[in-house]
Amino acid sequence: MSTIILGVDPGSRHTGFGVFQGEGDRLHHLASGSIKAGAKHPLATRLCRIYDGLAEVIRVHQPQALALEEIFLAANVHSAFTLGQVRGVVLLLAARSSLPIFHYAPLVVKKAVVGYGRASKTQVQLMVEQLLRLKVADEHAADALAVGLCHYFHQRWPGGIS
Amino acid sequence: MSTIILGVDPGSRHTGFGVFQGEGDRLHHLASGSIKAGAKHPLATRLCRIYDGLAEVIRVHQPQALALEEIFLAANVHSAFTLGQVRGVVLLLAARSSLPIFHYAPLVVKKAVVGYGRASKTQVQLMVEQLLRLKVADEHAADALAVGLCHYFHQRWPGGIS
Repeated sequence: MSTIILGVDPGSRHTGFGVFQGEGDRLHHLASGSIKAGAKHPLATRLCRIYDGLAEVIRVHQPQALALEEIFLAANVHSAFTLGQVRGVVLLLAARSSLPIFHYAPLVVKKAVVGYGRASKTQVQLMVEQLLRLKVADEHAADALAVGLCHYFHQRWPGGIS
Repeated sequence: MSTIILGVDPGSRHTGFGVFQGEGDRLHHLASGSIKAGAKHPLATRLCRIYDGLAEVIRVHQPQALALEEIFLAANVHSAFTLGQVRGVVLLLAARSSLPIFHYAPLVVKKAVVGYGRASKTQVQLMVEQLLRLKVADEHAADALAVGLCHYFHQRWPGGIS
Protein backbone atom coordinates (compact mmCIF):
# COMPACT_ATOMS: atom_id res chain seq x y z
CA MET A 1 0.00 0.00 0.00
CA SER A 2 1.50 3.29 -1.01
CA THR A 3 1.38 6.44 1.06
CA ILE A 4 2.13 10.07 0.28
CA ILE A 5 3.76 12.09 3.05
CA LEU A 6 4.34 15.83 3.35
CA GLY A 7 7.18 16.94 5.58
CA VAL A 8 7.35 20.59 6.61
CA ASP A 9 10.17 22.61 8.17
CA PRO A 10 8.46 25.81 9.35
CA GLY A 11 10.40 29.05 9.40
CA SER A 12 9.31 32.67 9.19
CA ARG A 13 11.72 33.34 6.30
CA HIS A 14 12.03 29.97 4.64
CA THR A 15 9.53 27.19 5.12
CA GLY A 16 10.81 23.95 3.67
CA PHE A 17 8.47 21.35 2.29
CA GLY A 18 8.94 17.93 0.78
CA VAL A 19 6.47 15.38 -0.56
CA PHE A 20 7.22 11.83 -1.50
CA GLN A 21 5.42 8.59 -2.11
CA GLY A 22 6.49 5.47 -0.29
CA GLU A 23 5.59 1.88 -1.07
CA GLY A 24 7.56 -0.65 0.91
CA ASP A 25 11.23 -0.08 0.11
CA ARG A 26 10.49 2.16 -2.82
CA LEU A 27 10.54 5.89 -2.26
CA HIS A 28 9.51 8.31 -4.97
CA HIS A 29 10.15 12.03 -4.62
CA LEU A 30 7.21 14.15 -5.74
CA ALA A 31 8.14 17.72 -4.88
CA SER A 32 10.28 19.73 -2.50
CA GLY A 33 11.57 23.22 -2.05
CA SER A 34 11.16 26.15 0.24
CA ILE A 35 8.64 28.93 0.40
CA LYS A 36 10.53 32.19 0.61
CA ALA A 37 8.18 34.36 2.59
CA GLY A 38 10.26 37.51 2.13
CA ALA A 39 12.05 38.87 5.18
CA LYS A 40 10.98 42.44 4.40
CA HIS A 41 7.27 41.76 4.46
CA PRO A 42 5.17 42.00 7.61
CA LEU A 43 4.79 38.70 9.43
CA ALA A 44 1.07 38.47 8.58
CA THR A 45 1.88 38.68 4.86
CA ARG A 46 4.57 36.03 5.26
CA LEU A 47 2.14 33.76 7.09
CA CYS A 48 -0.30 34.12 4.18
CA ARG A 49 2.39 33.14 1.69
CA ILE A 50 3.35 30.11 3.74
CA TYR A 51 -0.28 29.05 4.13
CA ASP A 52 -1.08 29.53 0.45
CA GLY A 53 2.14 27.87 -0.71
CA LEU A 54 1.61 24.78 1.41
CA ALA A 55 -2.09 24.69 0.52
CA GLU A 56 -1.08 24.48 -3.15
CA VAL A 57 1.36 21.63 -2.43
CA ILE A 58 -1.43 19.76 -0.61
CA ARG A 59 -3.90 20.44 -3.42
CA VAL A 60 -1.55 19.11 -6.08
CA HIS A 61 -0.07 16.11 -4.27
CA GLN A 62 -2.86 15.07 -1.88
CA PRO A 63 -0.64 13.76 0.93
CA GLN A 64 -2.13 11.48 3.59
CA ALA A 65 -0.06 12.78 6.50
CA LEU A 66 1.91 15.84 7.54
CA ALA A 67 5.13 15.44 9.53
CA LEU A 68 6.82 18.20 11.50
CA GLU A 69 9.72 18.50 13.90
CA GLU A 70 8.78 19.04 17.51
CA ILE A 71 9.51 22.36 19.18
CA PHE A 72 13.22 22.94 19.62
CA LEU A 73 13.28 23.81 23.30
CA ALA A 74 16.75 25.32 23.29
CA ALA A 75 15.50 28.29 21.26
CA ASN A 76 15.01 31.56 23.10
CA VAL A 77 11.58 33.01 23.88
CA HIS A 78 11.60 35.36 20.92
CA SER A 79 12.48 32.74 18.33
CA ALA A 80 10.09 30.24 19.93
CA PHE A 81 7.36 32.82 19.58
CA THR A 82 8.18 33.58 15.93
CA LEU A 83 8.48 29.91 15.06
CA GLY A 84 5.25 29.23 16.93
CA GLN A 85 3.41 31.70 14.73
CA VAL A 86 4.50 29.91 11.57
CA ARG A 87 3.81 26.52 13.05
CA GLY A 88 0.30 27.59 14.08
CA VAL A 89 -0.47 28.38 10.47
CA VAL A 90 0.87 25.01 9.33
CA LEU A 91 -1.24 23.18 11.95
CA LEU A 92 -4.32 25.18 10.95
CA LEU A 93 -3.81 24.25 7.31
CA ALA A 94 -3.34 20.57 8.19
CA ALA A 95 -6.53 20.56 10.26
CA ARG A 96 -8.49 22.33 7.54
CA SER A 97 -7.15 19.84 4.99
CA SER A 98 -8.08 16.91 7.30
CA LEU A 99 -4.43 15.85 7.29
CA PRO A 100 -3.25 13.95 10.37
CA ILE A 101 -0.21 15.59 11.96
CA PHE A 102 2.83 13.73 13.31
CA HIS A 103 5.59 15.30 15.39
CA TYR A 104 9.12 14.02 15.81
CA ALA A 105 11.95 15.33 17.93
CA PRO A 106 15.03 16.48 15.94
CA LEU A 107 17.10 13.65 17.44
CA VAL A 108 14.53 11.10 16.34
CA VAL A 109 14.51 12.48 12.80
CA LYS A 110 18.30 12.26 12.54
CA LYS A 111 18.34 8.79 13.99
CA ALA A 112 15.67 7.62 11.56
CA VAL A 113 17.31 9.11 8.48
CA VAL A 114 21.05 8.95 9.13
CA GLY A 115 21.25 6.33 11.85
CA TYR A 116 22.37 8.44 14.76
CA GLY A 117 20.90 11.41 16.53
CA ARG A 118 23.90 13.72 16.44
CA ALA A 119 24.23 13.74 12.65
CA SER A 120 25.08 17.09 11.05
CA LYS A 121 22.75 18.98 8.72
CA THR A 122 25.02 18.02 5.81
CA GLN A 123 24.82 14.35 6.69
CA VAL A 124 21.02 14.55 6.88
CA GLN A 125 20.88 16.26 3.51
CA LEU A 126 23.20 13.70 1.88
CA MET A 127 21.17 10.80 3.22
CA VAL A 128 17.88 12.38 2.09
CA GLU A 129 19.41 12.81 -1.36
CA GLN A 130 20.55 9.17 -1.44
CA LEU A 131 17.22 7.80 -0.23
CA LEU A 132 15.19 9.81 -2.72
CA ARG A 133 17.81 9.91 -5.51
CA LEU A 134 17.76 13.64 -6.04
CA LYS A 135 19.62 16.87 -5.33
CA VAL A 136 17.55 18.88 -2.86
CA ALA A 137 17.14 22.60 -3.41
CA ASP A 138 18.35 23.71 0.02
CA GLU A 139 18.63 22.75 3.68
CA HIS A 140 15.00 23.68 4.39
CA ALA A 141 13.74 21.27 1.74
CA ALA A 142 16.18 18.64 3.06
CA ASP A 143 14.91 19.07 6.64
CA ALA A 144 11.31 18.84 5.47
CA LEU A 145 11.98 15.65 3.51
CA ALA A 146 13.92 14.25 6.48
CA VAL A 147 11.01 14.58 8.90
CA GLY A 148 8.69 13.13 6.25
CA LEU A 149 11.03 10.15 5.81
CA CYS A 150 11.24 9.76 9.58
CA HIS A 151 7.46 9.46 9.68
CA TYR A 152 7.50 6.94 6.84
CA PHE A 153 10.07 4.73 8.58
CA HIS A 154 8.21 4.95 11.89
CA GLN A 155 5.02 3.88 10.14
CA ARG A 156 6.78 0.93 8.52
CA TRP A 157 8.53 -0.22 11.68
CA PRO A 158 6.34 0.93 14.54
CA GLY A 159 8.48 -1.07 16.97
CA GLY A 160 11.45 1.20 16.41
CA ILE A 161 14.28 1.87 14.01
CA SER A 162 17.62 0.31 14.77
CA MET B 1 -15.92 59.53 11.31
CA SER B 2 -16.76 56.28 13.00
CA THR B 3 -14.48 53.30 13.17
CA ILE B 4 -15.02 49.67 14.15
CA ILE B 5 -12.18 47.98 15.99
CA LEU B 6 -11.63 44.32 16.84
CA GLY B 7 -9.41 43.55 19.80
CA VAL B 8 -8.12 40.02 20.27
CA ASP B 9 -6.51 38.33 23.27
CA PRO B 10 -5.06 35.11 21.83
CA GLY B 11 -4.82 32.02 24.01
CA SER B 12 -4.75 28.34 23.18
CA ARG B 13 -7.65 27.61 25.55
CA HIS B 14 -9.58 30.88 25.56
CA THR B 15 -9.20 33.49 22.87
CA GLY B 16 -10.91 36.71 23.89
CA PHE B 17 -12.42 39.03 21.32
CA GLY B 18 -14.18 42.37 21.52
CA VAL B 19 -15.62 44.62 18.84
CA PHE B 20 -16.83 48.15 19.31
CA GLN B 21 -17.60 51.20 17.27
CA GLY B 22 -16.07 54.52 18.15
CA GLU B 23 -17.06 57.97 16.96
CA GLY B 24 -15.31 60.75 18.80
CA ASP B 25 -16.19 60.41 22.49
CA ARG B 26 -18.93 57.91 21.84
CA LEU B 27 -18.11 54.25 22.19
CA HIS B 28 -20.61 51.58 21.25
CA HIS B 29 -20.01 47.95 22.16
CA LEU B 30 -20.90 45.54 19.36
CA ALA B 31 -19.80 42.11 20.55
CA SER B 32 -17.36 40.44 22.90
CA GLY B 33 -16.69 37.08 24.45
CA SER B 34 -14.19 34.30 24.31
CA ILE B 35 -13.77 31.37 22.00
CA LYS B 36 -13.37 28.28 24.11
CA ALA B 37 -11.18 26.09 22.00
CA GLY B 38 -11.47 23.06 24.27
CA ALA B 39 -8.39 22.06 26.25
CA LYS B 40 -8.88 18.38 25.43
CA HIS B 41 -8.77 18.81 21.67
CA PRO B 42 -5.54 18.65 19.67
CA LEU B 43 -3.96 22.03 19.11
CA ALA B 44 -4.70 21.95 15.36
CA THR B 45 -8.42 21.53 16.08
CA ARG B 46 -8.29 24.38 18.60
CA LEU B 47 -6.55 26.60 16.05
CA CYS B 48 -9.34 25.87 13.56
CA ARG B 49 -11.98 26.84 16.11
CA ILE B 50 -10.19 30.07 16.90
CA TYR B 51 -9.76 30.90 13.22
CA ASP B 52 -13.37 30.12 12.35
CA GLY B 53 -14.75 31.88 15.42
CA LEU B 54 -12.86 35.09 14.74
CA ALA B 55 -13.63 34.87 11.01
CA GLU B 56 -17.32 34.88 11.91
CA VAL B 57 -16.88 37.94 14.16
CA ILE B 58 -15.12 39.73 11.28
CA ARG B 59 -17.80 38.68 8.79
CA VAL B 60 -20.61 39.97 10.99
CA HIS B 61 -19.07 43.20 12.28
CA GLN B 62 -16.67 44.20 9.49
CA PRO B 63 -14.03 45.87 11.68
CA GLN B 64 -11.49 48.22 10.09
CA ALA B 65 -8.57 47.29 12.32
CA LEU B 66 -7.38 44.44 14.52
CA ALA B 67 -5.51 45.20 17.75
CA LEU B 68 -3.40 42.72 19.69
CA GLU B 69 -1.07 42.79 22.66
CA GLU B 70 2.58 42.43 21.85
CA ILE B 71 4.48 39.32 22.87
CA PHE B 72 4.86 39.03 26.63
CA LEU B 73 8.58 38.42 26.80
CA ALA B 74 8.61 37.17 30.37
CA ALA B 75 6.81 34.00 29.32
CA ASN B 76 8.87 30.83 29.12
CA VAL B 77 9.85 29.20 25.84
CA HIS B 78 7.06 26.65 25.94
CA SER B 79 4.27 29.13 26.58
CA ALA B 80 5.76 31.57 24.06
CA PHE B 81 5.67 28.78 21.50
CA THR B 82 2.07 27.84 22.27
CA LEU B 83 0.93 31.44 22.30
CA GLY B 84 2.85 32.03 19.07
CA GLN B 85 0.88 29.28 17.37
CA VAL B 86 -2.43 30.91 18.24
CA ARG B 87 -1.18 34.34 17.34
CA GLY B 88 0.05 33.12 13.95
CA VAL B 89 -3.48 32.01 13.14
CA VAL B 90 -4.90 35.39 14.20
CA LEU B 91 -2.36 37.24 12.04
CA LEU B 92 -3.12 34.97 9.10
CA LEU B 93 -6.82 35.67 9.43
CA ALA B 94 -6.22 39.43 9.66
CA ALA B 95 -4.07 39.36 6.53
CA ARG B 96 -6.61 37.26 4.64
CA SER B 97 -9.36 39.66 5.74
CA SER B 98 -7.25 42.65 4.64
CA LEU B 99 -7.43 43.96 8.20
CA PRO B 100 -4.52 46.17 9.31
CA ILE B 101 -2.91 44.87 12.51
CA PHE B 102 -1.80 47.02 15.43
CA HIS B 103 0.31 45.81 18.35
CA TYR B 104 0.53 47.36 21.80
CA ALA B 105 2.65 46.39 24.77
CA PRO B 106 0.65 45.31 27.86
CA LEU B 107 1.88 48.39 29.76
CA VAL B 108 0.69 50.67 26.99
CA VAL B 109 -2.74 49.03 26.98
CA LYS B 110 -3.13 49.49 30.74
CA LYS B 111 -1.93 53.07 30.57
CA ALA B 112 -4.36 53.87 27.76
CA VAL B 113 -7.38 52.27 29.42
CA VAL B 114 -6.85 52.75 33.16
CA GLY B 115 -4.34 55.57 33.24
CA TYR B 116 -1.33 53.74 34.57
CA GLY B 117 0.73 50.81 33.35
CA ARG B 118 0.69 48.72 36.51
CA ALA B 119 -3.09 48.43 36.75
CA SER B 120 -4.49 45.06 37.81
CA LYS B 121 -6.62 42.85 35.57
CA THR B 122 -9.64 43.75 37.68
CA GLN B 123 -9.01 47.46 37.23
CA VAL B 124 -8.70 47.00 33.48
CA GLN B 125 -11.96 45.05 33.37
CA LEU B 126 -13.82 47.65 35.46
CA MET B 127 -12.62 50.47 33.26
CA VAL B 128 -13.53 48.61 30.07
CA GLU B 129 -17.00 48.04 31.54
CA GLN B 130 -17.36 51.72 32.41
CA LEU B 131 -16.16 52.94 29.02
CA LEU B 132 -18.44 50.62 27.07
CA ARG B 133 -21.28 50.52 29.63
CA LEU B 134 -21.56 46.74 29.83
CA LYS B 135 -20.65 43.72 31.95
CA VAL B 136 -18.00 41.77 30.09
CA ALA B 137 -18.27 37.99 29.92
CA ASP B 138 -14.81 37.21 31.28
CA GLU B 139 -11.24 38.46 31.59
CA HIS B 140 -10.36 37.33 28.07
CA ALA B 141 -13.13 39.44 26.57
CA ALA B 142 -12.06 42.32 28.84
CA ASP B 143 -8.43 42.07 27.70
CA ALA B 144 -9.51 41.97 24.07
CA LEU B 145 -11.71 45.05 24.46
CA ALA B 146 -8.90 46.79 26.37
CA VAL B 147 -6.38 46.42 23.55
CA GLY B 148 -9.05 47.52 21.07
CA LEU B 149 -9.78 50.62 23.16
CA CYS B 150 -6.06 51.29 23.45
CA HIS B 151 -5.86 51.34 19.66
CA TYR B 152 -8.86 53.64 19.44
CA PHE B 153 -7.37 56.13 21.89
CA HIS B 154 -4.00 56.05 20.15
CA GLN B 155 -5.71 56.75 16.84
CA ARG B 156 -7.60 59.71 18.34
CA TRP B 157 -4.57 61.19 20.09
CA PRO B 158 -1.58 60.09 18.05
CA GLY B 159 0.66 62.40 20.08
CA GLY B 160 0.19 60.31 23.20
CA ILE B 161 -2.26 59.65 26.00
CA SER B 162 -1.71 61.49 29.24
